[in-house]
Amino acid sequence: MFKTIEWKKTGVVMIDQRLLPGKEVYNTYTDYKGVAGAIKDMVVRGAPAIGVAAAMGVAIGASGIKTSDPAAFRKELGKICDLLASTRPTAVNLFWGIERMRSVAASHPGASVATLKRLLVDEAKKIHREDIAICREIGRHGGTLLKDGSTVLTHCNAGALATAGYGTALGVIRGAIDRGKKIAVYADETRPFLQGARLTAWELHKDKIDCTLITDNMAGYIMGKGLINAVVVGADRIAANGDTANKIGTYSVAILAKEHGIPFYVAAPLSTIDLKIKHGDEIPIEERNTNEVTQLRGSVIAPKGIKVRNPAFDVTPNRLVTAIITEKGVVKKPYIKGLKALFAKGSIK
Amino acid sequence: MFKTIEWKKTGVVMIDQRLLPGKEVYNTYTDYKGVAGAIKDMVVRGAPAIGVAAAMGVAIGASGIKTSDPAAFRKELGKICDLLASTRPTAVNLFWGIERMRSVAASHPGASVATLKRLLVDEAKKIHREDIAICREIGRHGGTLLKDGSTVLTHCNAGALATAGYGTALGVIRGAIDRGKKIAVYADETRPFLQGARLTAWELHKDKIDCTLITDNMAGYIMGKGLINAVVVGADRIAANGDTANKIGTYSVAILAKEHGIPFYVAAPLSTIDLKIKHGDEIPIEERNTNEVTQLRGSVIAPKGIKVRNPAFDVTPNRLVTAIITEKGVVKKPYIKGLKALFAKGSIK
Repeated sequence: MFKTIEWKKTGVVMIDQRLLPGKEVYNTYTDYKGVAGAIKDMVVRGAPAIGVAAAMGVAIGASGIKTSDPAAFRKELGKICDLLASTRPTAVNLFWGIERMRSVAASHPGASVATLKRLLVDEAKKIHREDIAICREIGRHGGTLLKDGSTVLTHCNAGALATAGYGTALGVIRGAIDRGKKIAVYADETRPFLQGARLTAWELHKDKIDCTLITDNMAGYIMGKGLINAVVVGADRIAANGDTANKIGTYSVAILAKEHGIPFYVAAPLSTIDLKIKHGDEIPIEERNTNEVTQLRGSVIAPKGIKVRNPAFDVTPNRLVTAIITEKGVVKKPYIKGLKALFAKGSIK
Repeated sequence: MFKTIEWKKTGVVMIDQRLLPGKEVYNTYTDYKGVAGAIKDMVVRGAPAIGVAAAMGVAIGASGIKTSDPAAFRKELGKICDLLASTRPTAVNLFWGIERMRSVAASHPGASVATLKRLLVDEAKKIHREDIAICREIGRHGGTLLKDGSTVLTHCNAGALATAGYGTALGVIRGAIDRGKKIAVYADETRPFLQGARLTAWELHKDKIDCTLITDNMAGYIMGKGLINAVVVGADRIAANGDTANKIGTYSVAILAKEHGIPFYVAAPLSTIDLKIKHGDEIPIEERNTNEVTQLRGSVIAPKGIKVRNPAFDVTPNRLVTAIITEKGVVKKPYIKGLKALFAKGSIK
């Protein structure tokens, strides 16, 4: 099986998701600027995976700082964190991962540079390990929501490739299958970056999970034919009231699900929930380069000079969300109360 | 300005819509098999344009029949019509165009082969001329529905390229603009064949009409931001009750429009209305080659061996349609009565 991201002696190793499904290439990044570039250019993507990558970016950046003076080290560490935090705006896991790294340094005020370096690398590795465990718990909780014989529609990739492994939305599907249920999947191709066609279809096909690829605009037709029993998607940031930012198109899928009376589930770790954000309209939405829309692997598919929008995410209002599946359990409306309560529970191992 | 399809002494000339927007190439077809191939392979597409192409295919086929015996000629003509009718199943204009040609032959029982050949060519040219006039009438009626300063979302291409000229959905937009209104357009790119990105964006850009390209899954986001005042689409076949078959994704757009309280208009000539079909679920939906989904201009974007669906059309139920705009006026609910009444009106010049 492939590894999305790994900490190795040689550096931070990531599968280059831009080249999938055609080529399975692993890039090694030996400094934090390389990791920052990999996040920005979507070598690695998916909110939980971005959180892990950012933490590893801080760790490898810290390891490379050439000073034995703790004050100078901390100053440099702050700059590294700031640069990594500037790569992408929407997925809160990026800031969460960096914050965990900052906290390690802050909670060891008297430590030597060598100790801090060791502690930061340990923390990044821990975040990686935890992420897989969290996904498996999401799968355990979410798997109970899917009936045996269900067909699930998913959008974008919230799979092993979007996390340290197993996945969030695809973790729910794997969780159901691992418990003996028969589950089939329809995958939206997810323009413009095609994470559904290139990544979800690839990892499910590799896992021998029954998967059918459709273009985004076929979702309504497929639902109308009665072929979908549930929608499960991931999230990039969930506001305190349950409003959910996720890959562009998710909002449309949620409306289609409502119209057809199909439950719409969001699967995400607690690190994706941002209680500081009250409503979804406060979540910053990244607009990416218009080339992603007008070109496809170098082939131009639109006339020169045409105006283009390329918002990378949209926000699904809480009223359209049937339940949010986390590693600490399934939350239903009212989300303000339920999401807050999750953070009072003890952490999972 | 470009010409979508023309009858010339050298043959039937069509702009190759598969090569747009990169290359503006005109193909000349000198026999009916070539025209049939052009329809099947989507050199020409769009219901009204397919109707014109089919009629010209019959005309050029008839011209090429090598007999002076009227009975033998009629038998051969029947075969030509049958082959052209087998090219694509959904757009009823194909069958309508062929039927008009058959009627010309049927209504001249004693004619010589030379006379029949001339009458058939004249009829094909007439269908072509009429189609442009019909589109302008659709634009005149539909233009009144759009307020000055409106922004219109459209799906696929129901423009000059989908007709003999001017367009149906884009005819409505042109009709409003021609009457001094300021109209902006958002164009869904319309996967898998990208008629929105490649054709609608191209012809509107050429016409200096304000156009912004989005991927299909951005439509909900753009509507949610309050940027769309009306949706106008074309049609491939309209049932007697107003259920409308159109390019895949239209049904989803109609649901999104309803959710956001945006009027959803269908613009089509009477030749697209099939009173023999009572409900939309009786309309045959073409499933096209899965390569259209898994490949883009030769570039593979999905894993090998993945299951794929590729329905080329979907049906929007009449309850989601605010009005149907035809060359004889605008019809609202109940459609059964209104659509039938249209056919009682005199023909337009």
